[in-house]
Amino acid sequence: MLEIPATLMRGGTSKCWVFRRDELERVGAPVDDILLRLYGSPDERQIDGLGGGTSTTSKAVILAPSRRDDADIDYTFAQIGLADGRVDWSSNCGNCSAAVAPYALHAGWLAPRGDRTAVRIFNTNTGQLIVAEVPTPGGMFDESGDTHIVGVPFAGLEVVLWFVDPAGRTTGRLLPSGVALEEIDGVPVTLIDGGAPVVIAEAAALGLTGLETPAEIDARPEMLARIDGIRREGAVRMGLAATAVAALKAVPKVALVSPRSADDHDLGVTMMSMGKAHPAIAITGSVALTLAAATPGTVVSRMAARGAADVTSLRTPSGVVSTRIGRHGALPAVGITRSARRLADASVTLPLEQLPDHASGLVEEALLVR
Amino acid sequence: MLEIPATLMRGGTSKCWVFRRDELERVGAPVDDILLRLYGSPDERQIDGLGGGTSTTSKAVILAPSRRDDADIDYTFAQIGLADGRVDWSSNCGNCSAAVAPYALHAGWLAPRGDRTAVRIFNTNTGQLIVAEVPTPGGMFDESGDTHIVGVPFAGLEVVLWFVDPAGRTTGRLLPSGVALEEIDGVPVTLIDGGAPVVIAEAAALGLTGLETPAEIDARPEMLARIDGIRREGAVRMGLAATAVAALKAVPKVALVSPRSADDHDLGVTMMSMGKAHPAIAITGSVALTLAAATPGTVVSRMAARGAADVTSLRTPSGVVSTRIGRHGALPAVGITRSARRLADASVTLPLEQLPDHASGLVEEALLVR
Repeated sequence: MLEIPATLMRGGTSKCWVFRRDELERVGAPVDDILLRLYGSPDERQIDGLGGGTSTTSKAVILAPSRRDDADIDYTFAQIGLADGRVDWSSNCGNCSAAVAPYALHAGWLAPRGDRTAVRIFNTNTGQLIVAEVPTPGGMFDESGDTHIVGVPFAGLEVVLWFVDPAGRTTGRLLPSGVALEEIDGVPVTLIDGGAPVVIAEAAALGLTGLETPAEIDARPEMLARIDGIRREGAVRMGLAATAVAALKAVPKVALVSPRSADDHDLGVTMMSMGKAHPAIAITGSVALTLAAATPGTVVSRMAARGAADVTSLRTPSGVVSTRIGRHGALPAVGITRSARRLADASVTLPLEQLPDHASGLVEEALLVR
Repeated sequence: MLEIPATLMRGGTSKCWVFRRDELERVGAPVDDILLRLYGSPDERQIDGLGGGTSTTSKAVILAPSRRDDADIDYTFAQIGLADGRVDWSSNCGNCSAAVAPYALHAGWLAPRGDRTAVRIFNTNTGQLIVAEVPTPGGMFDESGDTHIVGVPFAGLEVVLWFVDPAGRTTGRLLPSGVALEEIDGVPVTLIDGGAPVVIAEAAALGLTGLETPAEIDARPEMLARIDGIRREGAVRMGLAATAVAALKAVPKVALVSPRSADDHDLGVTMMSMGKAHPAIAITGSVALTLAAATPGTVVSRMAARGAADVTSLRTPSGVVSTRIGRHGALPAVGITRSARRLADASVTLPLEQLPDHASGLVEEALLVR
């Protein structure tokens, strides 16, 4: 039984275990095998491990001090599968990103600087630079906080995440099809690549008010099929798939947008994820909508009632989420407020004798290459 | 932010955090408030806490060395509610009981004695004495194990739990109605109090083969209503409720029994819990069925194909569970094999400033009285 230090944290609306990269490398086994066994996968319930048996609670954050000039911390995200027994390294988790700076300050990797400390985080999965701002009043780091966010019933430490220069990270262009507005299946759409590739579609053109609950949308199979058809055609026009049939299920996502229904937001949004309506919104999706709101001629900028010029408030089925546009040095950045809380510092047990038999030495490659 | 030592363990098919009673007492706040905040309740997802968002992963085990002559460890079980924000101290969890002895040996509360070490555990919720046997070959405690149980896809340390003298703990009698066999709604039943009060009913008399899946039974509302009616009348005859309407939803449980369908078991069992068919079986339910198999004239002893006289093998929807009858000193005992694994030793964080404002000094009472 090997013991590995790890810290359980809530980041935004996700829960993740945070590992030091050097501690995982030291094990001398493939990191996929280590994580799967630690989390108790494959198993839908993950009853023999650290995983929580849901996608939002089966996540790992792997950290190391960065050797890059533009970053303080290298951050690799891993989504640990449940029954399928696979580890997915293909994307970042915006919510887990909120755990990185509090962890680094708690661990003493960085010293607080002034009343707000900015931690530069390089996400190795996507190449995205994220600057996390944490309050450190009087130059002191205090983990307790009183920031509330949608989807979390308790207060936590405020963490403002700035996604630096997020446009075109997947396709190379903010508007991969070259236009801000086009039509698919009679529905006005904007195809945008910021944070993640998203097909933004007018809810009204689909016959939706935008006030439907996720369950109400999910109960209409013909509607889901039509939305997925638009999504697949969008994938082709964005250069993400050769044909509509070949489009991946997870990328791009779809955002259904509608005019505001009250004074506390600029725009209504229902995100579609994996063929179903999302109860809230992915952080990466909110980045894409923010960029669309700031881009003339998109379905969003035509529709959004803008309060402050640099703030976009999105009504999601769970509540209102606000983002803002700012700068990091000379680069544009999209900011969103999350909260985080350290739940436990731990030493977790790995039954090394139960790992598949592998050659050692693959760990560093897995963590660095992806 | 207060830090409290705690250990995350799998016990059988449950996952629980293990606390030292003195560490919880030291906080100086009501233990219900401490546990609810630590686990992130009230919240269906428990996203800001240690809870796993399901009943089998929102459990606490609270331990102290015992001052009793007949026990080594005092063990209090707490079921932490999700959305309801309540802590239930009214029953024990058979699966979590398997975590106690490995914890005590790991913590050094006890020294191993010989090739198998017996740890005497007094469950304060029920007054039940449980003797846990753990392999300690050559007088050494090694946490790694190769024992497999139904419902857990990985091997763990073997823990044999002996429930000492379990008959009549709720009603005072093994057969509270005074007979081994009677009829309710035309169905032969045995009303038995061992481990927990259970109404054992013949599946065939209900028109069931006993090979139905839980989903198939749950899809028949008229069947569920009939079974619940039998359960409620059983509650009255066992003296647990004044009228059928007044019967609790959780007590008694119902076990539907059927003849064996293969050589690897003596009896088929589908447990009903909270109005639905259970995917496996509660440990306390298996104790009741074991006692029924050993009691002449019950629906079980009439039906069960017995292999070894002291072993009862129950086919559940998840697989075969075996129990045995033995002795602890002069007292009868029912034994069942579980496995356990220590997942993490931790220091968990309690945001003391978020607790409700209470007078202190209530903690010890809560832990000792119940």
